[in-house]
Amino acid sequence: MPDILSHGQYDTVYNFLSLVIASQLFTALFLLISLPRILPRYRQAITVAIIVCGIAAYHYFRIFDSFKEAFVTTSVGGTGDYTQAVGTGFNEGYRYVDWFLTVPLLLVELIAVLALARKVQSGLLMRLVPAAALMIALGYPGEISGENSLRIIFGLLSMIPFAYILYILFVQLSKSLTSQPASVRTTLSRLRYLLVISWIVYPIAYVLPLFNAGGGDAWVSKQVGYSVADIVAKAVYALIIFSVAKAKSYEDSSEFAASERSHEDAVKGRK
Amino acid sequence: MPDILSHGQYDTVYNFLSLVIASQLFTALFLLISLPRILPRYRQAITVAIIVCGIAAYHYFRIFDSFKEAFVTTSVGGTGDYTQAVGTGFNEGYRYVDWFLTVPLLLVELIAVLALARKVQSGLLMRLVPAAALMIALGYPGEISGENSLRIIFGLLSMIPFAYILYILFVQLSKSLTSQPASVRTTLSRLRYLLVISWIVYPIAYVLPLFNAGGGDAWVSKQVGYSVADIVAKAVYALIIFSVAKAKSYEDSSEFAASERSHEDAVKGRK
Repeated sequence: MPDILSHGQYDTVYNFLSLVIASQLFTALFLLISLPRILPRYRQAITVAIIVCGIAAYHYFRIFDSFKEAFVTTSVGGTGDYTQAVGTGFNEGYRYVDWFLTVPLLLVELIAVLALARKVQSGLLMRLVPAAALMIALGYPGEISGENSLRIIFGLLSMIPFAYILYILFVQLSKSLTSQPASVRTTLSRLRYLLVISWIVYPIAYVLPLFNAGGGDAWVSKQVGYSVADIVAKAVYALIIFSVAKAKSYEDSSEFAASERSHEDAVKGRK
Repeated sequence: MPDILSHGQYDTVYNFLSLVIASQLFTALFLLISLPRILPRYRQAITVAIIVCGIAAYHYFRIFDSFKEAFVTTSVGGTGDYTQAVGTGFNEGYRYVDWFLTVPLLLVELIAVLALARKVQSGLLMRLVPAAALMIALGYPGEISGENSLRIIFGLLSMIPFAYILYILFVQLSKSLTSQPASVRTTLSRLRYLLVISWIVYPIAYVLPLFNAGGGDAWVSKQVGYSVADIVAKAVYALIIFSVAKAKSYEDSSEFAASERSHEDAVKGRK
């Protein structure tokens, strides 16, 4: 964490943190209002998506407050720079609390929208959820310790459950994807990549301190990176899950599709 | 309560208290959204579960604020340690107010989801609810008194209603469990153990001061222990109650099950 942020750096972090709050909160609200517009069997997935965005919004409120308290303005020399408040730190731990709850739930969303047979579904969840929780929990001691060696050890340890999650998503899950309707198969397959690519930001930010990238710019980039990754992995991801749930609802019930779709589409569908 | 917390100790308590708020708040929201996804006869149990998680979230907001006010940063020597603010104390009493309301309600949840005959149900509630309220009320004078003798006396007194609750749950209730559908009987039976095991944390934390475990680490462990116990006994417990309510709803109405379940399961169920 840098000792001094310039006015521009301070405002950048401020604005990005606020952008995340708005994105998560209103994605959650949009999905809450839209819940009746999908069939009941897909509502579990969207309910979990609402919860994920809500939990993220809650933690960004906390992060926002922590950021405001950690930096105070100095007018020394009239530079307008912000300087770190003495003794109080920016609490990076909130992010881990957030991920500890949301990352397992992101995988639950994906599995729930597939609406697989109960047995297959619980088999996948029993593997993915503990692995995701373990991945985050192992990162935490490395993040809060000031020592590089601990950061490396716990970083490597958390790669083990991460590799396991990749194996389940890209090997085990591929079999289940073949049973999905053709209209959503590609989207679902790509969704795994969106998840994994947006997750890559986190380990990059995690290893940055090892290279002594402790300056203001590096720190601001890290906060912006986390913010963008959290928007993509939670809000954008949730909206794609919702579009899948909607497409599957239409496939399952032509009656439901007719009431939801545009006139033109409905007429075409009748022909 | 310790005079000084290190930066790491302070952040650990901070993050765990925040984790409890997020867990309770969003479990309540999840259940609120999911209420239509069970049959009306099980909604009483889930409504009580929402209230319990809501009450817990409220009290953890209070505990969080009380914690923030009880410790202030010192910059003496630049160590970054937090020291107790003069004159203000951390209000452990909030926990008792919370338990006084939520512990009886946790037992109401369990009885309500069984959906027993009205007479049996009210018979069980008339015994469990007063016993639970009495158990908490008797613990309070011991907790706030600074004297070990009072702590021991009231601790022992509160064990009497606790023993009575155990008797009702594991002897009286066992008869009623046999009438439950086979698919949820084991879950319900285990749920009693989850409740009782998570409750064990509270008496352990209660007797700790007797052994002069007054250091920072002991205090931090106590706060973490309470937090984890409250998450398990309220949020995790509520989610299990919900899964029982869902399973029983499916058993009661195959029509309801068909609309909620995946295609595959619905087809299998019809065969």
